[in-house]
Amino acid sequence: MVLFNPDSTGPLRYVHNFNKSIAGAESNVAIALARLGHEVGWFSKLGDDEFGRYIKAVIRGEGVDVSRASIDSERSTGLLFKERFAHVNPNVYYYRKNSAASNITTEDLDLDYIRSAKILHVTGITLALSHTARETVYKAIEVAKSNNVLISFDPNIRLKLWNIEEAKSIIMDIIKMTDIAFPGKEEGKLLLGTDEPKEIGRFFLNMGCKIVATKLGKEGCYIASRENEELVAGYIVEKPEDTVGAGDGFAAGFLSGILRNLNLRECGQLANAVGAMATLVRGDMEGFPTLQQVKKYMGIETHIDR
Amino acid sequence: MVLFNPDSTGPLRYVHNFNKSIAGAESNVAIALARLGHEVGWFSKLGDDEFGRYIKAVIRGEGVDVSRASIDSERSTGLLFKERFAHVNPNVYYYRKNSAASNITTEDLDLDYIRSAKILHVTGITLALSHTARETVYKAIEVAKSNNVLISFDPNIRLKLWNIEEAKSIIMDIIKMTDIAFPGKEEGKLLLGTDEPKEIGRFFLNMGCKIVATKLGKEGCYIASRENEELVAGYIVEKPEDTVGAGDGFAAGFLSGILRNLNLRECGQLANAVGAMATLVRGDMEGFPTLQQVKKYMGIETHIDR
Amino acid sequence: MVLFNPDSTGPLRYVHNFNKSIAGAESNVAIALARLGHEVGWFSKLGDDEFGRYIKAVIRGEGVDVSRASIDSERSTGLLFKERFAHVNPNVYYYRKNSAASNITTEDLDLDYIRSAKILHVTGITLALSHTARETVYKAIEVAKSNNVLISFDPNIRLKLWNIEEAKSIIMDIIKMTDIAFPGKEEGKLLLGTDEPKEIGRFFLNMGCKIVATKLGKEGCYIASRENEELVAGYIVEKPEDTVGAGDGFAAGFLSGILRNLNLRECGQLANAVGAMATLVRGDMEGFPTLQQVKKYMGIETHIDR
Amino acid sequence: MVLFNPDSTGPLRYVHNFNKSIAGAESNVAIALARLGHEVGWFSKLGDDEFGRYIKAVIRGEGVDVSRASIDSERSTGLLFKERFAHVNPNVYYYRKNSAASNITTEDLDLDYIRSAKILHVTGITLALSHTARETVYKAIEVAKSNNVLISFDPNIRLKLWNIEEAKSIIMDIIKMTDIAFPGKEEGKLLLGTDEPKEIGRFFLNMGCKIVATKLGKEGCYIASRENEELVAGYIVEKPEDTVGAGDGFAAGFLSGILRNLNLRECGQLANAVGAMATLVRGDMEGFPTLQQVKKYMGIETHIDR
Amino acid sequence: MVLFNPDSTGPLRYVHNFNKSIAGAESNVAIALARLGHEVGWFSKLGDDEFGRYIKAVIRGEGVDVSRASIDSERSTGLLFKERFAHVNPNVYYYRKNSAASNITTEDLDLDYIRSAKILHVTGITLALSHTARETVYKAIEVAKSNNVLISFDPNIRLKLWNIEEAKSIIMDIIKMTDIAFPGKEEGKLLLGTDEPKEIGRFFLNMGCKIVATKLGKEGCYIASRENEELVAGYIVEKPEDTVGAGDGFAAGFLSGILRNLNLRECGQLANAVGAMATLVRGDMEGFPTLQQVKKYMGIETHIDR
Amino acid sequence: MVLFNPDSTGPLRYVHNFNKSIAGAESNVAIALARLGHEVGWFSKLGDDEFGRYIKAVIRGEGVDVSRASIDSERSTGLLFKERFAHVNPNVYYYRKNSAASNITTEDLDLDYIRSAKILHVTGITLALSHTARETVYKAIEVAKSNNVLISFDPNIRLKLWNIEEAKSIIMDIIKMTDIAFPGKEEGKLLLGTDEPKEIGRFFLNMGCKIVATKLGKEGCYIASRENEELVAGYIVEKPEDTVGAGDGFAAGFLSGILRNLNLRECGQLANAVGAMATLVRGDMEGFPTLQQVKKYMGIETHIDR
Ligand SMILES: Nc1ncnc2c1ncn2[C@@H]1O[C@H](COP(=O)(O)OP(=O)(O)O)[C@@H](O)[C@H]1O
Ligand SMILES: Nc1ncnc2c1ncn2[C@@H]1O[C@H](COP(=O)(O)OP(=O)(O)O)[C@@H](O)[C@H]1O
Ligand SMILES: Nc1ncnc2c1ncn2[C@@H]1O[C@H](COP(=O)(O)OP(=O)(O)O)[C@@H](O)[C@H]1O
Ligand SMILES: Nc1ncnc2c1ncn2[C@@H]1O[C@H](COP(=O)(O)OP(=O)(O)O)[C@@H](O)[C@H]1O
Ligand SMILES: Nc1ncnc2c1ncn2[C@@H]1O[C@H](COP(=O)(O)OP(=O)(O)O)[C@@H](O)[C@H]1O
Ligand SMILES: Nc1ncnc2c1ncn2[C@@H]1O[C@H](COP(=O)(O)OP(=O)(O)O)[C@@H](O)[C@H]1O
Repeated sequence: MVLFNPDSTGPLRYVHNFNKSIAGAESNVAIALARLGHEVGWFSKLGDDEFGRYIKAVIRGEGVDVSRASIDSERSTGLLFKERFAHVNPNVYYYRKNSAASNITTEDLDLDYIRSAKILHVTGITLALSHTARETVYKAIEVAKSNNVLISFDPNIRLKLWNIEEAKSIIMDIIKMTDIAFPGKEEGKLLLGTDEPKEIGRFFLNMGCKIVATKLGKEGCYIASRENEELVAGYIVEKPEDTVGAGDGFAAGFLSGILRNLNLRECGQLANAVGAMATLVRGDMEGFPTLQQVKKYMGIETHIDR
Repeated sequence: MVLFNPDSTGPLRYVHNFNKSIAGAESNVAIALARLGHEVGWFSKLGDDEFGRYIKAVIRGEGVDVSRASIDSERSTGLLFKERFAHVNPNVYYYRKNSAASNITTEDLDLDYIRSAKILHVTGITLALSHTARETVYKAIEVAKSNNVLISFDPNIRLKLWNIEEAKSIIMDIIKMTDIAFPGKEEGKLLLGTDEPKEIGRFFLNMGCKIVATKLGKEGCYIASRENEELVAGYIVEKPEDTVGAGDGFAAGFLSGILRNLNLRECGQLANAVGAMATLVRGDMEGFPTLQQVKKYMGIETHIDR
Repeated sequence: MVLFNPDSTGPLRYVHNFNKSIAGAESNVAIALARLGHEVGWFSKLGDDEFGRYIKAVIRGEGVDVSRASIDSERSTGLLFKERFAHVNPNVYYYRKNSAASNITTEDLDLDYIRSAKILHVTGITLALSHTARETVYKAIEVAKSNNVLISFDPNIRLKLWNIEEAKSIIMDIIKMTDIAFPGKEEGKLLLGTDEPKEIGRFFLNMGCKIVATKLGKEGCYIASRENEELVAGYIVEKPEDTVGAGDGFAAGFLSGILRNLNLRECGQLANAVGAMATLVRGDMEGFPTLQQVKKYMGIETHIDR
Repeated sequence: MVLFNPDSTGPLRYVHNFNKSIAGAESNVAIALARLGHEVGWFSKLGDDEFGRYIKAVIRGEGVDVSRASIDSERSTGLLFKERFAHVNPNVYYYRKNSAASNITTEDLDLDYIRSAKILHVTGITLALSHTARETVYKAIEVAKSNNVLISFDPNIRLKLWNIEEAKSIIMDIIKMTDIAFPGKEEGKLLLGTDEPKEIGRFFLNMGCKIVATKLGKEGCYIASRENEELVAGYIVEKPEDTVGAGDGFAAGFLSGILRNLNLRECGQLANAVGAMATLVRGDMEGFPTLQQVKKYMGIETHIDR
Repeated sequence: MVLFNPDSTGPLRYVHNFNKSIAGAESNVAIALARLGHEVGWFSKLGDDEFGRYIKAVIRGEGVDVSRASIDSERSTGLLFKERFAHVNPNVYYYRKNSAASNITTEDLDLDYIRSAKILHVTGITLALSHTARETVYKAIEVAKSNNVLISFDPNIRLKLWNIEEAKSIIMDIIKMTDIAFPGKEEGKLLLGTDEPKEIGRFFLNMGCKIVATKLGKEGCYIASRENEELVAGYIVEKPEDTVGAGDGFAAGFLSGILRNLNLRECGQLANAVGAMATLVRGDMEGFPTLQQVKKYMGIETHIDR
Repeated sequence: MVLFNPDSTGPLRYVHNFNKSIAGAESNVAIALARLGHEVGWFSKLGDDEFGRYIKAVIRGEGVDVSRASIDSERSTGLLFKERFAHVNPNVYYYRKNSAASNITTEDLDLDYIRSAKILHVTGITLALSHTARETVYKAIEVAKSNNVLISFDPNIRLKLWNIEEAKSIIMDIIKMTDIAFPGKEEGKLLLGTDEPKEIGRFFLNMGCKIVATKLGKEGCYIASRENEELVAGYIVEKPEDTVGAGDGFAAGFLSGILRNLNLRECGQLANAVGAMATLVRGDMEGFPTLQQVKKYMGIETHIDR
């Protein structure tokens, strides 16, 4: 989606200027992974309009393969407006009903492309967009699973897109097929009635996940697998500038660790560091680090800044 | 609609900042009439969101009665993005499918309010938005006509909203019920196959119109009634800043003349002046004058500017 | 007044850009009340210039009846520049000597309009502007009182507009005629030599007030009447964005409670909530809530923000 | 004065942002002369406020001696707002009644400073500001004349500051004491009833002027002295960006020629070139050239621009 | 290079804000070709800094293969500031001495990559940057020529980078190895002493070029080959917004024609159209069209713009 | 140098707009001293370009004598880009290699000017710029010392400009000639291996300094002389906006105290106050106070701010 950011706080009716950028949980994860040095491809559907061309150019510019993003000649690219208040989470206004992305279908999938991947990352947002989008996610997971591609899943519940009952039933169904799950505490509450990381981990492991990395905001994360489970403390950010995108950075950091064969504790640390760095910068994806930068941040190298 | 204006020329994907303002043929006419000193009411349907509240505040701020604008609790307020090029007409991108305005229904009409009016002004845009919107226009015209309220109509053909066949059939149907029509030359071409003002006038008069004021851009207008017809020369604008809104200002100027009992030639002159003044300012409605200002512009008073 | 806000902190000589908005204690209270659902009218005098037309359009847009704001054909609309520093109160520079507003006279009052109101709200600022302005306030109060219209008064002492001796003598005189007073702690100090809410309350009650709602910043307020007195704790705002306008929102919230026949404690809570919400947004009046929004804020409803 | 420039065309009530810069006929001439390499001092009176400090810093930064600008501890620095329309002269709104500058008195003059100058340049604007300002101009002229300092005068009639009768009587009185006069065609019309350069020249020569350089916009100027008179053709500016300040640049160019002992034709050419260059840039004084730049512009040197 | 564009006209010392974008004759041609649907790779050397990463992301985002752009860990990415005046060509200020790009060496070339190309496009700018850069161009041409890759060359003389003698000797040397040359009229003057397109064409053909496409600004171009020569009239642009980049668009359009096997006349028309469209938009490369857009512009399709 | 400030946080490649201002440790100290009421001259070398003219105009505008700043006709004025992150020190990117300033030589010194001064203030930055710059500093110190001009020195170590070994050897050499030294704690660590103010003070006193004022950030400073030493507590700044420039303000405050014959404790207090005020405003030098303002800040006078 194209994201319009107000240049001042307060109700949107008083805002005169908006800055354009891009938003999207999947594209965030893809960009963060590319920046960490991995080869990433991104599936989506864009309108045949300037906003679609913009999204494609930005994501391609970040080094993500966008050759599998298809174009919808009839529908428009989805939009998103943020409304910011001092120290309160932003409101968002979606213009994505009937957008190109919501019209993605199984025909937009390049199945061989999926088969040749190591990890398939999906989120609850696409599941909520439309029936064809949901079907597409199911199809992609099916193909991936039968080719031993790992399934990574971030529930990313957005109650502006679907109601909790529907969300719950579909998400729990997807969890069953998930290898690596990235729930947050609040999502634990919504889905399982508990925000205890321990319980969230066990529940999802029991449903079939191999790894559950529960995001705990500034506390860090709680990593659970069948072999082991532990709290991995987060990095201290004195005054976060913008926490949106932290969860996506976290997922990318974790998957990067998996791809580099780090152990789970190290995966959690890398994830925490990428998540924390995402909060230092206004914008969803501007703060994602390169491998070199995240290493510096984790304290492995020093840095002359002036 | 809320209008987002790029702060630079060129394809939108390269534009970083957008300014918010409002757009809409009917609200333009309403505002222009209010500024000329008339009592005006405005019917529409807005989303229960910040953009809807913004539109309402702006139009109310201009002195138009917005008490009959209803609120749709489910649909969003429509949006419009402009894309500007040096000396080429701007492109527009609509986000108004399924907008609150397109969901207006006959139930949103206050029939007594219409009955008590002197003129009902409608445009082809509302006719194109949706079936319920079209039905609502028909209903409003029906009630107005049976109470001797004058019907004023601007075809305002937008081929991004409907195709020419559908547009033609509906617009020609509305023309039959119209008292005062404001076609442009290009619309003559699309509807009648001619852009000859004389012919456009006669054709519409024959269909039942009482007055046909054909807009001729910088040339001015051609006014035809059953009694008389003549070209009324336009005002000279050395370098127009933005011609969008000129047609709406023209209609408002003409209707103001009618309400003031001016003769048709004078109505045409007032219309030309308001239309010309609209072109002096970037923005659809910012350039509409007060009665005093338009008189100055028409040369009746002088003005100390520094 | 028209308010020019610097787009950066620091001494104004280094500021390149200024944003235009409106300011004014009385218009703030009027707008806040309108937003809370009440019918409000606003008296003032504006220049016959673009800045005057701007103020009128904004306030009318917010749903306040501006039909009683008169126009001064000779004097200009007053201006105000703010100068902001990190975590220090802003400086203000007035350009309002001899402004249209300072030239308001008793002839600008529509006495019947006042007679038909429930509450007349006045502030110390108008008293300080000029002799005719002061006379006008006295006249309005006189007419209101003899028609059982409640007098509401916010001292709003501005030592840039008058010196403390003059301010004190006039304000104490007005207090005698006041039904509902909204002093702040600092004003208690300036007027009575004490910033003890209890003492401020008693002193003003003794002078004839029926209700004294002393504003205590983030602490909330202290409400005193002849029957009862109590501290009503404020809402917690982690990091206020801009506290200007909080006092006006507070007054509006309180008066709204009175008009809704809430008890004094509830009036204080509503006032605190509106005051607190005003601090969440940059700008004097942009943060004032609708009734629905303030109820959400007070914890009565939940809200899906994405 | 501090000048606030709207960042968009149209009525000021629709303008959101204003840029700050400085304005003033005398300071323009002083800056232009400094840039051309002369030693210049500037008399004025500024408020003891940020706007006053800003003006002083800018003019000093340009190399003008501001040590004789005095400070008024009570009055504010004057302001000026511009309102721009496409290809129509801007409107201006003054906030300078009772400003520090209008309170300048003969006591603010350093008479020895004047005595040691070669030229004293005054304009009709200061004459219009207030009675003390006018008196101050008279005093300065008196002292200058009795020390053989040349008097240079630009009528600069502003009908927003005084009416034509008063303007005429004072200006004609000053003309009698003027050595070098810089009238425009329109001013000829207002003062003498003729815009014929020949006639303007003769009339003023007869009144006692030694040189009359009548400004003719893009046509250039008409230079008349007792010995000779001729039209000096202007430079061709394809599309001027902003003509405000051209007249001040012209005067500075002419006076620079006088100080360099050029002949009158050459003075006129230099004046035309500086005037033309001022029109190439938005802003009153930003376009004034150095001697080297104006020589390039006049075609004496070439220039590698990339 | 990173290009900093002033947000207002006039001398840079008065400009407060600068917008960042990219510039570079070779990257412009690469982007324009990519947009027209061709596979393009780009050689350069960038600093290991944010500006280098920015350039890489933008060019990659446009669909150009940047995998052969190397990184200099010691030198900074070059910068360029523009200074704009109304209707005068902009001045440019370079900060590229010792930049990463000027440090490109033959080792930065992937010779196989060059061998597999159809066309190698080089410009006089790289020749002027440094000795190693020049050597690199020579090496690339040598490899290309011995593999039957066409050499395309735009002299792009920048006298701020080298003096005319040096420029002339090197450029004439390169011309001998060039297949397709894109001189401008002014360059004809500088190199050959004539701005007659006919003569420029013949001269270069005699030196060994196969095609000489001389750019004639709004007049279009003059195409000369051994078989034929003709003037191809340009497209009419009422008011060009920014002519920088037109020459690069022209070259790309022409090369696109060659790659599509169009005849020379058609190549010239496509080149003229791309060049003309580049002038419609502020910015060097923002105006380059897709194939579909340029076809519309050339009049083959119609377009519904609202 | 000209400083380009990003208008948003985050990596520079995502920043669209930059604001221009000036930077430079020596010019900061000069401006701060001028604002405190002293006569100050400034030596430097600027490019013969718009950026050089800008720096000169700003510094002259602040009341500093710039008549001894020389112009380099070949080299450009140096640039500096900042990159800001939430609550992390900014990164800086220099474009000053080979800049005009780095080309300053002993010939650019006006030795009589130095001889007639009371204090010569130099910093480690100039020492790091180039060999000629270093030689120039040495020469200036030599001339000053032999005329009993006090030497004031701020090490200002920038490891982006030289490495620690070279920095250390030169700075320790300069310290021997220094009368008043302004090290920071971190510099103590780098130079002496200790950040203990007591030890830093003693070490430098032993090397020959008369006064060592070690800067301790918000803690204030530690003043050591041969007679006495003490901690002078800093002013409390709730939330500093920008700490860059604090050290320069500190030095200026201290030197102002010396020039006013204050005792060392009072010098430290004045220095702390100027340093603290510098942190209240974004920008290096915008926050420096006048004597009157710093007195207010130190609590000697009260201030009516609205
Ligand atoms: N304020 C913070 N300080 C440090 N790290 C944070 C902070 N906020 C988020 N993170 C990191 O980012 C991760 C994801 O953030 P979180 O806010 O929990 O996710 P989501 O955005 O999905 O709700 C956290 O697990 C943590 O590692
Ligand atoms: N360039 C112009 N110069 C002068 N008047 C104009 C100009 N453009 C529009 N007008 C006035 O506005 C009226 C409506 O403009 P037009 O462009 O014909 O309408 P529309 O916007 O509906 O196409 C014209 O009839 C004329 O009176
Ligand atoms: N920082 C804050 N946190 C919470 N509530 C606040 C805060 N500041 C103001 N308020 C609310 O607004 C009311 C008025 O604010 P206050 O600053 O006391 O008034 P004034 O602007 O007149 O000085 C307070 O009584 C309180 O209810
Ligand atoms: N459009 C223009 N083209 C060329 N020169 C101009 C132009 N406008 C002004 N000038 C030069 O500036 C001088 C003063 O401009 P003018 O507009 O006549 O003065 P004023 O601003 O006092 O009315 C003219 O005499 C001429 O030399
Ligand atoms: N004003 C214009 N109108 C139409 N086409 C233009 C215009 N300017 C440039 N072009 C097209 O772009 C091509 C290159 O422009 P030109 O200015 O000649 O090149 P350069 O930028 O290399 O000097 C021209 O040959 C022409 O086709
Ligand atoms: N956060 C702060 N609060 C109060 N005073 C400060 C603060 N930061 C700096 N100062 C004042 O400015 C002086 C210089 O600041 P410091 O940061 O130590 O210098 P530098 O910029 O050279 O590192 C300090 O000694 C102190 O007096």
